[in-house]
Amino acid sequence: MVRPWSFERRDLRTHDVAVAITYCGVCYSDVEAVRGVREPTLPLVPGHELVGRVSAVGDDVTKFQVGDSVAISNCIDSCAVCDECRAGYQNHCTDGSPTLTYNGVDRYDGRRTQGGWSTEYVATEAWVHRLPDALDPAAAAPLMCVGTTSWEASRHWEIGPGMTVGVVGIGGLGHLGVKFAKALGAEVVAFTITPDHVADIKALGADDVVVSSHPDALAAQSRRFDFILDTASGAHDLSPYLRALRLHGTMCLLGITPVVEVETRSLRVGRHSVSGSGTGSPARVREMPDFCAEESIAADVEVLPSAQVTTALQRLERGDVRYRLVLDLADLAAVGS
Amino acid sequence: MVRPWSFERRDLRTHDVAVAITYCGVCYSDVEAVRGVREPTLPLVPGHELVGRVSAVGDDVTKFQVGDSVAISNCIDSCAVCDECRAGYQNHCTDGSPTLTYNGVDRYDGRRTQGGWSTEYVATEAWVHRLPDALDPAAAAPLMCVGTTSWEASRHWEIGPGMTVGVVGIGGLGHLGVKFAKALGAEVVAFTITPDHVADIKALGADDVVVSSHPDALAAQSRRFDFILDTASGAHDLSPYLRALRLHGTMCLLGITPVVEVETRSLRVGRHSVSGSGTGSPARVREMPDFCAEESIAADVEVLPSAQVTTALQRLERGDVRYRLVLDLADLAAVGS
Repeated sequence: MVRPWSFERRDLRTHDVAVAITYCGVCYSDVEAVRGVREPTLPLVPGHELVGRVSAVGDDVTKFQVGDSVAISNCIDSCAVCDECRAGYQNHCTDGSPTLTYNGVDRYDGRRTQGGWSTEYVATEAWVHRLPDALDPAAAAPLMCVGTTSWEASRHWEIGPGMTVGVVGIGGLGHLGVKFAKALGAEVVAFTITPDHVADIKALGADDVVVSSHPDALAAQSRRFDFILDTASGAHDLSPYLRALRLHGTMCLLGITPVVEVETRSLRVGRHSVSGSGTGSPARVREMPDFCAEESIAADVEVLPSAQVTTALQRLERGDVRYRLVLDLADLAAVGS
Repeated sequence: MVRPWSFERRDLRTHDVAVAITYCGVCYSDVEAVRGVREPTLPLVPGHELVGRVSAVGDDVTKFQVGDSVAISNCIDSCAVCDECRAGYQNHCTDGSPTLTYNGVDRYDGRRTQGGWSTEYVATEAWVHRLPDALDPAAAAPLMCVGTTSWEASRHWEIGPGMTVGVVGIGGLGHLGVKFAKALGAEVVAFTITPDHVADIKALGADDVVVSSHPDALAAQSRRFDFILDTASGAHDLSPYLRALRLHGTMCLLGITPVVEVETRSLRVGRHSVSGSGTGSPARVREMPDFCAEESIAADVEVLPSAQVTTALQRLERGDVRYRLVLDLADLAAVGS
């Protein structure tokens, strides 16, 4: 399904940065892209959480120099003129959407964007993010997708001291959700369906772990949480979690379940909210690597040679990942599908 | 089904106020109570939006005198000691729930509470609300249920100048939702499934009316609203309304649909929220009649003799109400079921 493919990145525009890619993570949306979900245009190079070093800069680039350690997230441009873009919410660009790192369309030349399972990426400097030296590049790569998604929600809902935060589903998103919430000063309770994982999840920093497959355990959480970050993607009943919120608490869905059922009483009683959130704005993505370096946070990753990309996809599909697979791309000419 | 029944209200406790009831509205929850929904204990006297004059006061009552024009809403007590009560959110009392005006259990003597389709009500003064003389008592009665529910949400989400507010479903709740939002300074857009009602809804104060049974009309509302108050109770697709929200907009459900389906993408894109809200806190109920008097707001009511209570229930059941039926109870000994 995934095989090598050679192609040329665009010539640098004046604000462009070229990045020699060293690592890129494997996201469940890559599995979907390879499977043909959302009708990708072929050929298609997946990968949208990439790190590397700047290899060239356009004439007007001011923020980066050749050799800088950088990262690119799952969006690489936006219209810059809609109300959302001008307010700093480029991640909610209303001119269609922000330009995706792959399987998107470049706003200037109309070419399909191709992702980070590759040797090089070219993007405008406003969407390229500096990585502090203290961060291990391979462990930093997933910060650019699951990291920014957890971070964006955590910051928007102002997780901090005095709050009790629940994190539902401890995978790629959730394990960083636990680390961020803890580092931001909250009391953190993780929900997992896997009793065997309790000790590992506590090691991530969770103050408490609830095995959610026990209905009594969930019922005992009544009115405990100011905020719940729900990263689970399979169908699951939101009601016990909504009842676990305090007055005016919010449950934010990060998972990709298309439709959820909500019991209105569990919204009304305690005036709870269900919301959703996706990737971060460039400003929020930008602040996160520094926070991670200061707090010694990175993704827990397993690095695979790029030649094992198919194995990586298969393992992700069957959930055999703790907590993120990352491809080593330094050895590579090109991988495409 | 509903027939006269004689019973005694409790002797006044020191903080109690006795009210000689003049009018009480008919709410859809009364229809459900009479039908036996939520397993009421019989005999049961419905009615939870009542107005009248103070006929007697307990020894320690300080806020009311005999003859004062007053109103009572759908809750009449709470535990007063839980976190929510102490924070002024007695409507979210976590000691079970606030005491309901009927079909509840008095927190002191353990007797079932009996409602306002009656000649007299007795409640503690903290849950009795003064009516300004400028308000017509019959038109003020529904302010105590649909009014306080619309008001509570409108105030919590800070409807005011510069906001565009949608109100979905223009019945008892919705017609007051439109009036409140307009008087609070918002631009107000009403959604109705009934094209014939457009002119009447504009007369309530709506700046625009969208006939939601036309899919194109709904699609054209994209990103128009800061806040949507959804008062519709039947099953309906929330997604078009969620897509009609601006960035960070909230859709608040006031209707009594037990379960709603939510498309997670319509939450994630624009970081929208779905919430719910119910009756008001005593403080919020208390401020509302004065606001209504200042803004010349009241419910649009049709007053029926108390003997026509069965007709009222039947009409409400088939939706033949514009916008609230109120029983004249001054002529009555007692009506029970």
